[in-house]
Amino acid sequence: MELLKQLGSQAQASAHALSLFNTTEKNKILEQIAQALLEQTPAILSANQKDLENADKNGIAPVMQDRLRLSTERIQEMAEGIRQVIQLPDPVGNVDNMWKNEAGLLIGKKRVPLGVIGIIYESRPNVTTDAASLCFKSGNAVILRGGKEAFHSNKMLVTIMQSVLAHYPSIQYAIQFVTDTSHETAAALMKLTEYLDVLIPRGGAGLIKRVKETATVPVIETGTGNNHVYIDKDAQLDMAIKIIVNAKAQRPSVCNAAETLLIHRDVAKEYLPHIERALLDANVELRADEEASAYLTSASLATDEDWETEYSDYILAIKLVDSIESAIAHINYYNTKHSEAIVTDSYQASQKFLNEVDAAAVYVNASTRFTDGFMFGYGAEIGISTQKIHARGPMGLPELTSIKYIVYGDGQIRE
Amino acid sequence: MELLKQLGSQAQASAHALSLFNTTEKNKILEQIAQALLEQTPAILSANQKDLENADKNGIAPVMQDRLRLSTERIQEMAEGIRQVIQLPDPVGNVDNMWKNEAGLLIGKKRVPLGVIGIIYESRPNVTTDAASLCFKSGNAVILRGGKEAFHSNKMLVTIMQSVLAHYPSIQYAIQFVTDTSHETAAALMKLTEYLDVLIPRGGAGLIKRVKETATVPVIETGTGNNHVYIDKDAQLDMAIKIIVNAKAQRPSVCNAAETLLIHRDVAKEYLPHIERALLDANVELRADEEASAYLTSASLATDEDWETEYSDYILAIKLVDSIESAIAHINYYNTKHSEAIVTDSYQASQKFLNEVDAAAVYVNASTRFTDGFMFGYGAEIGISTQKIHARGPMGLPELTSIKYIVYGDGQIRE
Repeated sequence: MELLKQLGSQAQASAHALSLFNTTEKNKILEQIAQALLEQTPAILSANQKDLENADKNGIAPVMQDRLRLSTERIQEMAEGIRQVIQLPDPVGNVDNMWKNEAGLLIGKKRVPLGVIGIIYESRPNVTTDAASLCFKSGNAVILRGGKEAFHSNKMLVTIMQSVLAHYPSIQYAIQFVTDTSHETAAALMKLTEYLDVLIPRGGAGLIKRVKETATVPVIETGTGNNHVYIDKDAQLDMAIKIIVNAKAQRPSVCNAAETLLIHRDVAKEYLPHIERALLDANVELRADEEASAYLTSASLATDEDWETEYSDYILAIKLVDSIESAIAHINYYNTKHSEAIVTDSYQASQKFLNEVDAAAVYVNASTRFTDGFMFGYGAEIGISTQKIHARGPMGLPELTSIKYIVYGDGQIRE
Repeated sequence: MELLKQLGSQAQASAHALSLFNTTEKNKILEQIAQALLEQTPAILSANQKDLENADKNGIAPVMQDRLRLSTERIQEMAEGIRQVIQLPDPVGNVDNMWKNEAGLLIGKKRVPLGVIGIIYESRPNVTTDAASLCFKSGNAVILRGGKEAFHSNKMLVTIMQSVLAHYPSIQYAIQFVTDTSHETAAALMKLTEYLDVLIPRGGAGLIKRVKETATVPVIETGTGNNHVYIDKDAQLDMAIKIIVNAKAQRPSVCNAAETLLIHRDVAKEYLPHIERALLDANVELRADEEASAYLTSASLATDEDWETEYSDYILAIKLVDSIESAIAHINYYNTKHSEAIVTDSYQASQKFLNEVDAAAVYVNASTRFTDGFMFGYGAEIGISTQKIHARGPMGLPELTSIKYIVYGDGQIRE
């Protein structure tokens, strides 16, 4: 793959140069990029039009077409997103801590960029500018490989960003785009260990799985969320209703929405009819196991497949459990390690759930919808990690850095 | 690979149980393991004897046989190593920081084990007990796959550790061993993404490369060190001699030893003869580029291969450079991102070197030999990471953990 080797070696050179830029310089360039995007709005819309026409021709579903569609307002939001990244503190160069060792060496852990980051993503063109600006601010070069549905939009966005970088020759390859959208090239990118320090896939479960099974470059898995809300026997009904409706229906298409409701047998008979009414009011379709169905009027019967499905839609699976232990066992078996919530007034149940459920974020008496860089107070995020290596949960700028030990001596040698 | 799936699913179950053990319980079991190893010394020595006989039969080099050889004293050191791990603070369960977000949620980053760790290693049997005790203390299950030269020794060590775990059924599979030493099984282990959270190779450059190119499980690269000492034009001669002799010859077989000396043209003529004398006194063989050779009496001519070789032996490559920029460029091109040192009295040169050299540890006026968990004050280490993802430099217990966000609410939903 000559193309990828070229992109890789260009990216490495620009990454080295960019790692030495200070925050003021990087922010100035990001502002120029935001302005260039606003100025080039007509060119972006026209490129986007091509993608929309192709989508129409290829019979792409309306919901997907909506993800793809740009407008003047959406381009303004992209520029606004870059200005939010400008406001974020720059982690690069900070020394996390510093100490003297026994030999008198002064040892510090200094934040440095990761180097070259690959991003493989699907249909939303805004990922192009979001990911590029976060990688740039954290001193990393990025190689973007977007979905072929958004090819013209993405290419135009990158061309505009590159026209700004062209004024800074040492970092002109800090933002690059893979123009070959074949699966072979994507697979080769996943194995580009010589040049890529990390690969971040952003998209649906199929993409994440493919990357995980193919990549030899270090991967940070993001995104899929088969999340649960467990209503304990000591839960308050009002709070339970409020949380499950919010977790399911406030925005069902996102990864921190809930997909399955688990409810303790002791409260199922009393609570489920009220919960059903609230969910039906929120247009949610219900699929329940046999025991839960006994207390519901509108649910169809759930199959095993429902327990493992991330609907990303107005559909909720419901299951009765005998105990918190059964709830935790079901969750740890079926979940994607994203976000899990318990509703309870029991101290013991809350601690048990927090300790034993394996997920990036575990909630007591709150909606799963809070797993998000903005909600956690991190500002913009590059994604939500569902693995345990390197970063877990919402990833902001610090998660796009590594460390370097800097060591100040005065002639120390090892005895 | 039915064998690996079984090991993997057993490990996962034990990892979940072990994650809930408190520090006192884990330390008690580690002490029982240390005692069992001491008590079973004759059985370990007899298993080791089989490995040594095979090594002899197969014509394994004496230096490798030495790595393989156990003695009563070495077994005592293994037990002592476990007792050092007992003394280390347990990171699991600590909450790194905790804050309230705008919605009033109390959000904490709690340290949790990684889960199931695979270790692929070569001939030293002590890695078996070192790695097992570090993984255990940090709440992880471990699957060990040692080299076939040490098969009987490793198997006996694991059998003894398992005999202790057998008294704790919920965690009886926390330490496991792959008894099939074929390359196919090793390759399958590297792709066991369903069960392994991370894979740590420990061994030579060949092993690391094979793992990096094969593994789809997240890998933490450790170990290879093609390290440099750069003697700047403003270096003090005495300090330069002391540091390069220590970095090269104090223990040449380890990964933080230096392999190449770079020296600034302005001081080469004056310094090199003194440096040569000190290195020859330390039994170091010299390979120099043409320009450096002019000031040396005993050096053979270096080829490009020398710049990329980790000798792990009493051999040093020497190269003249025109500037600190050339030194940094050479280092960043040839190094393995492990440990790099500059000797200088110049403030500007020290800062430039610290900022621009890409390595896990960068030293001013000190020997590269300090890159080590003990020297940094971390206690025991599982290896030295030469990648940027997850961990970089010496990895102790905290690097064997991840985080989980724990979130305390009182009914919050997202607006």
